[in-house]
Order: sequence, then C-alpha cells, then structure tokens
Amino acid sequence: MQIIETISAMRGWSEAERRQNRLIAFVPTMGFLHEGHLCLVRAARKRGDRVVVSIFVNPTQFSPGEDFAGYPRNFARDHELLANENVDVLFHPAVEEIYPAGGQTHVDVEKLSLPLCGASRPGHFRGVATVVTKLFNIVLPHVAIFGEKDFQQLQIIRQLVRDLSMGVEIVGHPIVREPDGLAMSSRNSYLAPEERLAALCLSQSLCKAERLFRRGETYAPAIVRLVLSEIAKQPLAAVEYVKICDAQTLDELEEINRLAVLALAVRIGRARLIDNKTLRQ
Amino acid sequence: MQIIETISAMRGWSEAERRQNRLIAFVPTMGFLHEGHLCLVRAARKRGDRVVVSIFVNPTQFSPGEDFAGYPRNFARDHELLANENVDVLFHPAVEEIYPAGGQTHVDVEKLSLPLCGASRPGHFRGVATVVTKLFNIVLPHVAIFGEKDFQQLQIIRQLVRDLSMGVEIVGHPIVREPDGLAMSSRNSYLAPEERLAALCLSQSLCKAERLFRRGETYAPAIVRLVLSEIAKQPLAAVEYVKICDAQTLDELEEINRLAVLALAVRIGRARLIDNKTLRQ
Repeated sequence: MQIIETISAMRGWSEAERRQNRLIAFVPTMGFLHEGHLCLVRAARKRGDRVVVSIFVNPTQFSPGEDFAGYPRNFARDHELLANENVDVLFHPAVEEIYPAGGQTHVDVEKLSLPLCGASRPGHFRGVATVVTKLFNIVLPHVAIFGEKDFQQLQIIRQLVRDLSMGVEIVGHPIVREPDGLAMSSRNSYLAPEERLAALCLSQSLCKAERLFRRGETYAPAIVRLVLSEIAKQPLAAVEYVKICDAQTLDELEEINRLAVLALAVRIGRARLIDNKTLRQ
Repeated sequence: MQIIETISAMRGWSEAERRQNRLIAFVPTMGFLHEGHLCLVRAARKRGDRVVVSIFVNPTQFSPGEDFAGYPRNFARDHELLANENVDVLFHPAVEEIYPAGGQTHVDVEKLSLPLCGASRPGHFRGVATVVTKLFNIVLPHVAIFGEKDFQQLQIIRQLVRDLSMGVEIVGHPIVREPDGLAMSSRNSYLAPEERLAALCLSQSLCKAERLFRRGETYAPAIVRLVLSEIAKQPLAAVEYVKICDAQTLDELEEINRLAVLALAVRIGRARLIDNKTLRQ
C-alpha cells in the first residue's frame, strides 16, 4: 500500500490509473478506523480495480467548541488495518495541503444542510460539501462509498454530485453495528463504561420505534414520542433531536406515507452520537 | 466539428480523449461570438490536442431585471465560426440539462466576489463560479482560456480552481479590441450608432489614465478622478464604478505600489460595458 501526502502526487496517480482504464473506488474517512470503515473498504474493493482511502480530519466541518483538536487519531493502527485490506493508496494530506492560506471558496448544498444535524452544527455541512468536492477533484474516483450512519451527509453528497455534475457514483453502505446494536463510530471511544451502556438507548429506541411502525403506526409524532420516552429512561443521555423525515428531501413528515428516515442525535458524556433507521412501507 | 448537447455524451467524449493521453483545451462562452472569442479559441488550439468550446447562456449569473432573455444569440453563425476554427467539439447544452429541477447547490468565492461588478450584480459571481465548476466537471479540460476583459471573473476562477483543487490550468487572454479601441463584447450589439461612438470613452479614458500613471502618478484617487472627468464629457455614459485595485486580491488601492488593475463599468443606453487596464510598474 502506497501512502500519498500531496495533491499533485495523488492526482498524478489517479490520472495514470484512469488512462489504464482502471476503475477507482474511494472511501473518504477521518481515520481512527473501526469495522464500519473496513466494511466500506471491502465494498469499495468489490466495485473498483483500485481502492483509495483518505484519512483527513477536516477542520472546516467542526464548529467552534467542537472536538476537532481532541478527535481521536491513530495513524499507525489505521495504516496497518488498511494494508491488511489490500488498499492501493492511503491518501493522508496535511491540513495545510488541503487548506493553504488564503482560501475563500465554499460549496453549499442549501436546503438539505438546514435540518437535523445542520440545525445544531452551523457550517458543518458546508465544510463537508467543500472538502468532499476537493477530495473528489484530487482522487478522481469513479465511485465513492459512504456509511448510512451519517444519513444526512450521504443525502447531501448525492445532491452535491448531481448538482455540480460530478462524474462520481455515490454508494451508501448500511450501518455497521456492534453485537449489542450500538452503531460503530470513532466517537464511541469517548464513552466511559457506564456511558457505553447508556448509549444502547439509541439503537434500542430505534428498534422499538420500528416495531411500532411495523404494527401499523404511521403517525410520526407517536413514533417520535416513543423514542423520546425510551431515551428519557436513561439519565446519562440528553436528546438533541429525534425526527422523522422524507428520506430524500429530509422534510419533516407528520404522516409516514413514503420512504422515511427516523434520525436522532443524543449526547452522552462528551460524545455526540447519531443513529437512524429507514422506515420503508 | 461535433455538436454535443448532453452531459453524459460530453463527459464520455472527454474521458475517451484523456485515456488517449490527449490534452483538452476549453473555451467556455455565452455565444454570439466575436473576434475576441475566436482569439481565445486560437489560444486553446495552441495549448491543447483537442479544443472544446461551450455555448451556454447561463441564467444563474443574471440578476433579476438583467438581460438574460434579451441576451444576443445566433447559434447558426456561432456554429459556422467555430467550424472554421477547427474546433473539435461544440458543447451546447439546454438550460434544463445543466439545471434540472431541484438543484440547491452553489459555489461561492467569497471575498473576490464582493467588490466591483459583484457590488452591483448580486449573485452574479456565485452563478459564474457554480456554472464554471459544473462545466469543468463535464468537459474535464486540462486547460481553460478566459478573456481578461472580465478581469474579476478571471481572478475568481483562478481562486476557485486553487481552492477546490481542480486540476485545470487557467489561462488569461489579453483584451481584444476593435480598431478604434472599444473592447469586444457581445453586448456591444446593444449599442445604437451614437452610443457606439460614446462607448469609446471607456478605452480612451483608460489610455489617458495609463499615460498619467506612466508619467509617475501613483496616487489612485488622482487617476480615478481623471477617468471620471473624461467619461463625464460623454452625456450618453453613466458610470457604475471606476476603481483601482490590487490585481490579485481586488482590494482597493490608494497608492499604486504593486501590480494593480484600473477597472470600470459604464452604462450606455441599455448596454452595461466593462473594461480595464493593468497598471504595472
């Protein structure tokens, strides 16, 4: 596995591969890899002749006061995990390589960036849309794989690619969970043992909500109420939002009469955790 | 010369050329071509193995009340002119091809978009930055040629390409002028004969200003005053702005102590004309 740190070397590699007619599959990450990331890498391996993984903790998608400086990092371990997956290139640029002084351009996906995580993390999705645009321009992938845990991010990237006419196929990968149901996340490392236990309220309340939906409940506020009351039982958990939205537009739904997503964000200790479940009739 | 109207056919063509290791040079235009455009095409021919010219009157760069509907168009003539220049592809998409319903993404080059034309045309450079990003993603050029008449646009596109890590070289081409000095522009077609004569005040005042600068005047307000007084002699002309700015940052200058641009916008009849002169010490 080759490690590339500069934009020009990365693009040069990709252009050479493209001239050879090879399909490039790309998995952008912020590192501190877990099994969820590795599932994305394996999905990339199935779709591409070459697999590129980026590790870049993107400062512009953290709001002031968020956990940019403390975001978990372990490059040596990430490197070993990716080498074991037969990744072709690990793209690992420095912050100054991606954001040299004097930058003033950003990409906004307006409507989809407003609700859910966008409401409590101002500028977050602008940072995501801008860095993904840059990474695509550098890595030149044919296909890119994103996890569905970050459901809003995935929809924003699909919209971004469509709206800016990028020639990249976007593939969503189902949420990968721990055996007890917790959605895998680098931020789970923030959880103390009792918080780790408390964090089960996210996936467990989603499962209860799904059962209620399966039994015929289509009135969104009733399902949201169930989730809120389940999480309220857990004193370490503080709800940021619980919403049911149209899965495409992310418009909030009252009646679940189309493909919907039940999405939530919950703070437990210093971890802000998200999870979601698609509600399909 | 091939005419291509869809995004997928255009990208397919460019990807095939790139696999053959051919350099693609691109000239984006809004059509109604004049000798200025043809000079850009010839510059492209020198730099690329293949030349693509786009004709697309981009609605998002016109503010409400501007001349989008009335912007001059003559596809048959443009087609003939480009065929005579041995252009390889004329990319001529419909508005719905570039902007299908539901789009919500835009690209902003923040600081450079604020002064000069940006001050009087809100949203103009957002529209430019967004459509140029899209066109680059579709045409996949190695190099793109832009005229220096739209000096602010050129600086914004250079910044855009740098900030979004696009692998496109941006080349500026000197302003092409009529024999009497008027900068060539599709909008010159709006001018009635007496207005056409009045329009000479733009280039003539710039020349006088340059002579003053050559004689040692480096105090920007003195040079601006000369330009304003020259244009004031012409009753058909209404100044929108006359400014001297740092040529890179477009920050207004008081003392001309670095590479500067003297830029102006003047309304004559229903034509809004722009012109500029670089002041190099």
